[in-house]
Amino acid sequence: QPVDLAAEIGKLFKTESLSGTQIMITAGPTWEALDPVRGITNHSSGMMGYALAQAAIEAGAQVTLVSGPTALTPPERAKVVNVVSALDMHAAVMQDIQDKHIFIGVAAVADYRPVDQQGQKIKKSQDEMTITMVKNPDILADVAARNPAPFCVGFAAETNDVEAYARGKLERKKLDLIAANHVGGEQTGFGVPDNAITLISAEAATPLPKQNKYALARQLIAEIAKHYQTKNA
Amino acid sequence: QPVDLAAEIGKLFKTESLSGTQIMITAGPTWEALDPVRGITNHSSGMMGYALAQAAIEAGAQVTLVSGPTALTPPERAKVVNVVSALDMHAAVMQDIQDKHIFIGVAAVADYRPVDQQGQKIKKSQDEMTITMVKNPDILADVAARNPAPFCVGFAAETNDVEAYARGKLERKKLDLIAANHVGGEQTGFGVPDNAITLISAEAATPLPKQNKYALARQLIAEIAKHYQTKNA
Repeated sequence: QPVDLAAEIGKLFKTESLSGTQIMITAGPTWEALDPVRGITNHSSGMMGYALAQAAIEAGAQVTLVSGPTALTPPERAKVVNVVSALDMHAAVMQDIQDKHIFIGVAAVADYRPVDQQGQKIKKSQDEMTITMVKNPDILADVAARNPAPFCVGFAAETNDVEAYARGKLERKKLDLIAANHVGGEQTGFGVPDNAITLISAEAATPLPKQNKYALARQLIAEIAKHYQTKNA
Repeated sequence: QPVDLAAEIGKLFKTESLSGTQIMITAGPTWEALDPVRGITNHSSGMMGYALAQAAIEAGAQVTLVSGPTALTPPERAKVVNVVSALDMHAAVMQDIQDKHIFIGVAAVADYRPVDQQGQKIKKSQDEMTITMVKNPDILADVAARNPAPFCVGFAAETNDVEAYARGKLERKKLDLIAANHVGGEQTGFGVPDNAITLISAEAATPLPKQNKYALARQLIAEIAKHYQTKNA
């Protein structure tokens, strides 16, 4: 279990750089039910968000982990709030955000949800069917629009033009930092142990090379702590 | 691990009732991609199909397991074909069905697939979006319509009027047996270790009480073997 080993080694490198800091992290996919059996979801395993929660705890932070459905065991000392849909996640985040210093939105939140949620399993009678979807609330933008807002870190998982999309998202949603990563490749992204990220602020783009998600999470948390302390200095 | 224990105990009860029999079993959900990141799927864990594969091997059968994406380890002696979408599963089944004596369709196959599969991640720009879906081929019906057809066992997972829907499916698709189970409750069905089933033939309905899926699978395989041998006597 190299991942567990990395987590164990990580405990030896406690930095306390986030001691006394309240952090909320969202992780995993959301599940948008079409009926009691079917739903729309995505390939997020939750690994990156859970690794960041672990790394933030190691750095001394108090962590609230708002998680969509995953198969992962959360870090021991995290406060965990389990949710299913994007609407659930939005409500759970808003309910608990007021005393948080840092918000890291890692969850792969569904952009849209089906208008109708059938209480009974849909029967297949027609040759074609259409699903009408409406936009979900934007959790990250709603958190960043608070006054005062916590220090906001977004994730942009894109299949193409990753950095351009990520910078657009940073500016549009008024984020402090955005971690851009390329998904859909075979080497990094969803459901695999390694990841590579470019951390983008208004001033700079810092590439963090491909590595185990737990190692990457510790690097990211160190960078986030540095930017957070600079902003609040 | 009670499930593994049940599997181990099962090995002591080898019946050889299916010795020399070629069985194909489909298991798990299918994943119908909306784009490289998102897709439509269902709550099937694959447990029931994998348990049936294990029980059939214990009964002496040679098993081909055609499986959608699951987190399970397949039985050691099964020939495993991994697939993603309903179209993949249909192709894999049809490619390999000709020498099979028994077909058991346990997979929770998506009834519909999106017409468009975007190569790039869909951007959220509109307030509403519609997904147009077309019907997938009916794997079970296509297998049962072969001439000669293997002995065909279907599964009907329903949230309401379970037995009536199941009997309709048995007749419409010309199956030999159908295993009807109620899903959406908290005690049986998808993603939980226990299940209860009513096994329906043209003549009778046999309730198999709620129990561990491995124990239930052995009962089901014994019933299937009995019906198969009666039909071919």
